[in-house]
Amino acid sequence: MPSFFERLRADSIAVWQDYICHEFVNRLSDGSLPEEAFRTYLAQDYLFLIQFSRAHALAVYKAGNLSDMHEGLAGLKAIMDTEMDLHVGLCAGWGLSKSDLEALPEASQTIAYTRFVLETGLRGDLLDLQVALAPCILGYAEIGRLNEEAQPQGPTSSAYRNWLDEYSGKAYQSVAQAFSDWMDRTAERYLTEARYPSLLKTFSQASTLETDFWQMGLNAAQ
Amino acid sequence: MPSFFERLRADSIAVWQDYICHEFVNRLSDGSLPEEAFRTYLAQDYLFLIQFSRAHALAVYKAGNLSDMHEGLAGLKAIMDTEMDLHVGLCAGWGLSKSDLEALPEASQTIAYTRFVLETGLRGDLLDLQVALAPCILGYAEIGRLNEEAQPQGPTSSAYRNWLDEYSGKAYQSVAQAFSDWMDRTAERYLTEARYPSLLKTFSQASTLETDFWQMGLNAAQ
Amino acid sequence: MPSFFERLRADSIAVWQDYICHEFVNRLSDGSLPEEAFRTYLAQDYLFLIQFSRAHALAVYKAGNLSDMHEGLAGLKAIMDTEMDLHVGLCAGWGLSKSDLEALPEASQTIAYTRFVLETGLRGDLLDLQVALAPCILGYAEIGRLNEEAQPQGPTSSAYRNWLDEYSGKAYQSVAQAFSDWMDRTAERYLTEARYPSLLKTFSQASTLETDFWQMGLNAAQ
Amino acid sequence: MPSFFERLRADSIAVWQDYICHEFVNRLSDGSLPEEAFRTYLAQDYLFLIQFSRAHALAVYKAGNLSDMHEGLAGLKAIMDTEMDLHVGLCAGWGLSKSDLEALPEASQTIAYTRFVLETGLRGDLLDLQVALAPCILGYAEIGRLNEEAQPQGPTSSAYRNWLDEYSGKAYQSVAQAFSDWMDRTAERYLTEARYPSLLKTFSQASTLETDFWQMGLNAAQ
Repeated sequence: MPSFFERLRADSIAVWQDYICHEFVNRLSDGSLPEEAFRTYLAQDYLFLIQFSRAHALAVYKAGNLSDMHEGLAGLKAIMDTEMDLHVGLCAGWGLSKSDLEALPEASQTIAYTRFVLETGLRGDLLDLQVALAPCILGYAEIGRLNEEAQPQGPTSSAYRNWLDEYSGKAYQSVAQAFSDWMDRTAERYLTEARYPSLLKTFSQASTLETDFWQMGLNAAQ
Repeated sequence: MPSFFERLRADSIAVWQDYICHEFVNRLSDGSLPEEAFRTYLAQDYLFLIQFSRAHALAVYKAGNLSDMHEGLAGLKAIMDTEMDLHVGLCAGWGLSKSDLEALPEASQTIAYTRFVLETGLRGDLLDLQVALAPCILGYAEIGRLNEEAQPQGPTSSAYRNWLDEYSGKAYQSVAQAFSDWMDRTAERYLTEARYPSLLKTFSQASTLETDFWQMGLNAAQ
Repeated sequence: MPSFFERLRADSIAVWQDYICHEFVNRLSDGSLPEEAFRTYLAQDYLFLIQFSRAHALAVYKAGNLSDMHEGLAGLKAIMDTEMDLHVGLCAGWGLSKSDLEALPEASQTIAYTRFVLETGLRGDLLDLQVALAPCILGYAEIGRLNEEAQPQGPTSSAYRNWLDEYSGKAYQSVAQAFSDWMDRTAERYLTEARYPSLLKTFSQASTLETDFWQMGLNAAQ
Repeated sequence: MPSFFERLRADSIAVWQDYICHEFVNRLSDGSLPEEAFRTYLAQDYLFLIQFSRAHALAVYKAGNLSDMHEGLAGLKAIMDTEMDLHVGLCAGWGLSKSDLEALPEASQTIAYTRFVLETGLRGDLLDLQVALAPCILGYAEIGRLNEEAQPQGPTSSAYRNWLDEYSGKAYQSVAQAFSDWMDRTAERYLTEARYPSLLKTFSQASTLETDFWQMGLNAAQ
C-alpha cells in the first residue's frame, strides 16, 4: 500500500516535479550552478533550519501521546544537535561564519515557507503540521536518491558534492523514512476523506514555496 | 440520527448525570440554594465568560473556512456583546459591581476548566475545541429545558428564576442548537473512529470540571 | 510625543517609502495602472482579508484584559462584517464573484505576509502582533491621506477612485487612528528598549512583505 | 541583586509559604506521610511531567533566538530523557508500571496547573511561560535544600528518601539555578514595571495550584 506521502505526491505531481527537478537542483547536481546561487541558498537554508527546529518543537507540543512526543523530540534533536552544525561547517567552507549567518535578513521566500508551515501547524492538528513539513523532509530525500541513481559510479568532482552526499546518505534517508512512517501513523488516526482536499492543498502550497526557495537562490546569481 | 453531542453524552452518561443533576443545580431549581453559594458561583461565572470569549475567538482563528469563521464570530458576539452584560445585570442585583467582578481572583476550579478548554483547542483542531466547549454550552441548555419541564405551570418564586429563565429561554436554546449543528458539521469533516476515544475523554474531563465548578459554589456556603 | 508607530516608521523610513510610494500605488493613483494588475491585487486582497480576520481573532485571544478584547473584537467586526462585503462589491464590479474569489489559490506573496503576521502573533505577545499588523492598517491610511492631499479638488476620473476613497474616507481613517492609539497603550505596558530592535525588525519585514504584495499585482500585468 | 524569582517570591510570600511548607511536604520529610498519599501524588506527577515536557517544547517554539531555543531544548531533554525515567523507576518501586501510569485519569488538580502553565505561555510571551513554570522548578529545588539543611547528618530512614534526594541533589539544583538565570536574562529583555502585577499574579496563581496539587495527594489518604 502506498504511503500517505506517496498519495499526496501523486495527486500533486506537476507541482512536485517543478520542485524536485528545478533548474537549481539540476545545476547543483551537474556542477554548473553559479557559486553565488549556492552561497545565497545555503545561508538562507540556515535561517530556514532555525524555523524548522521551531516547527519540530511545535510537533512535540501538538503531539497527542508520549510516543508522538518522542518522535518530535528525535526530529528536533536531529536538526538542532546535528544538522545545524553540519550546515555551519558547510558554510564555513564558503567563507560564512556562524555570526554572519545569524545576522542575515531572512529572504521573503524563507519567511513564506517557514511561517506557512508553523502557522498551518498552530491552526490545525499534528497531521496538518506533518503534511506541511513533508515536502521539505521527503523532497530532499528524493533529490538525494535521484542524484545517487544518476551517478552510481560514486562522487563526481562537483563542488556541491558534500551537500548531495548529505541528503543521499543513509543517515538522512532513514530520518526521512521514519518521518514518512510517523505521518502514516498519524494519518491512520486523523485522516478523513472529507479533509483530504485541504491536506492536499497544504502539501501543494508547501511544495510551491519550496520551488520559490530554489528560485531565490538562482535569482541571486543573475 | 443522533447528533455527535448525543453520542458523546450517551458514552459518558454517569459523568454527565453528575454534572447535570448536581446538588447545586437541584437546589438552585427548588430555591433552597444558599445565597452565598449562588453569589460565589455567579461571580466566578463572570470570570469564566471572559475566558469563554477567548475560546470563541480561538475558534475563529482555528476555523478552516469562512463559514466556520462566521459561526465562531456569532458565538463571540453572543458572549461579549450580550451574555456578559446580562451577567453584569444579574450580579448588580446581588450587589456585585463590574469592577468588583474583574478584581476577583479566579478560583482554581475556574482556572481548571477554562484553561483546559483553551489549551485543548490550541493543541488540537476545531473539533477538539468544540468538544471541550460542548459540556458548558449544551449542558446549560439541558439544565434549562429540564427545569422548564419540571415546572410547566410557569415561573416559581425562586430567587434564582432569572438565571433559570435565561437558559430555558428561546434565545439561549437556539444558540445551543446552532452550536450542536456546527459541531456535527465539523465532525463530518474531522471525526474518525480512531480518534473518538480521545474526544470522548476530552468531553468527559470537561464535564467533570463543570461538576467541580458547581461544587466550588456549594463549598462557599459551608 | 510621536506615537509608537511614528517611531517605527521613522526608524525604517527607506523600507517604508518603498512600500508607500510603490509604482503600483502611484499608478493606481494616476489611473495608469493596468486593469489586470488591479484585478489580481484585488482578488488576492480578499484572500488576505480572510487571514487578517484570523489575526484579529488572535488579538482577542492574546488580549491581556477585557478592554483589549473589545478592541480586538471591534477590529474583527470591522473586517468580517463590513470591509469584506465592500470588497465583494468592488470585485463584483470587476466581474469576480464571491465564489470565484474563495476558489482562487493564494499567491506566495499573500501567504508570506499573512502567515508572517499570524505566526509572529502566536510566538510573541499582543505587541508583536500589533507591530506586524501596523504596516497594513496604518500604511493604507497613509496612502489614502497622501492621495487626498495630492488631489484636493475632489475625485478624479480614475477607475480606481472607489478604492482610494475607501482608504482616505473618515471611517477608515478613524479605524486606523484607533489602532495606533491601541498600539500605544500596549507599548506602554510591554515595550522595553531591549526588545525594540526585534520589534523594528518585525515592522520592517512586514513592510517589505507589503511591497512584495504590490509587486505581485504589477507582475500580473507584464 | 536579587534574581527575578526572588522578587516574585518575596512579593507573594504568604502564598509561597503555603506551598513550600505544605503538610504534605512536612510529612514526606519526617516520614509520617501515608503511603497512599505519596503513591497518588507520584502517579499524578508522572502525568504532570508529560504536560511539563510539552511546556518546555513550547518554550523552544516561543524562543526569540537560537540561544533561548537551546535553553528550552536542554530542559525538554532533562525531563523526557532523564526525569521521566527516574519517575518510572520510583513508581515501579511502589508497584506502578509505566502502562498503569499512562492509563490513569488526570486529577482535576493536575489538569488545572498544567493547562494553566501551557495556556499562559501560548497567550503571552516567553517570560509569561517561565514565570508560570517557576513555582514548580524553583519550588522543588527550595524544598530539596530546606530538607537537606534540616537533616545535615545525612539520609534518614524515611521511605521517601529517594524522592527528597533527587531534588536536593546537585544535578537538580543546577538545573534549577540555570532556569532562574535564564528567566533573569528573559526579564532583562521583556520585563516592564507596568506588566509586573500581571506576572506576579501568574506566579501567585501557579503557586496556589501547586498547593492544590499537594492537597490532592493528602486527600487520597483520607
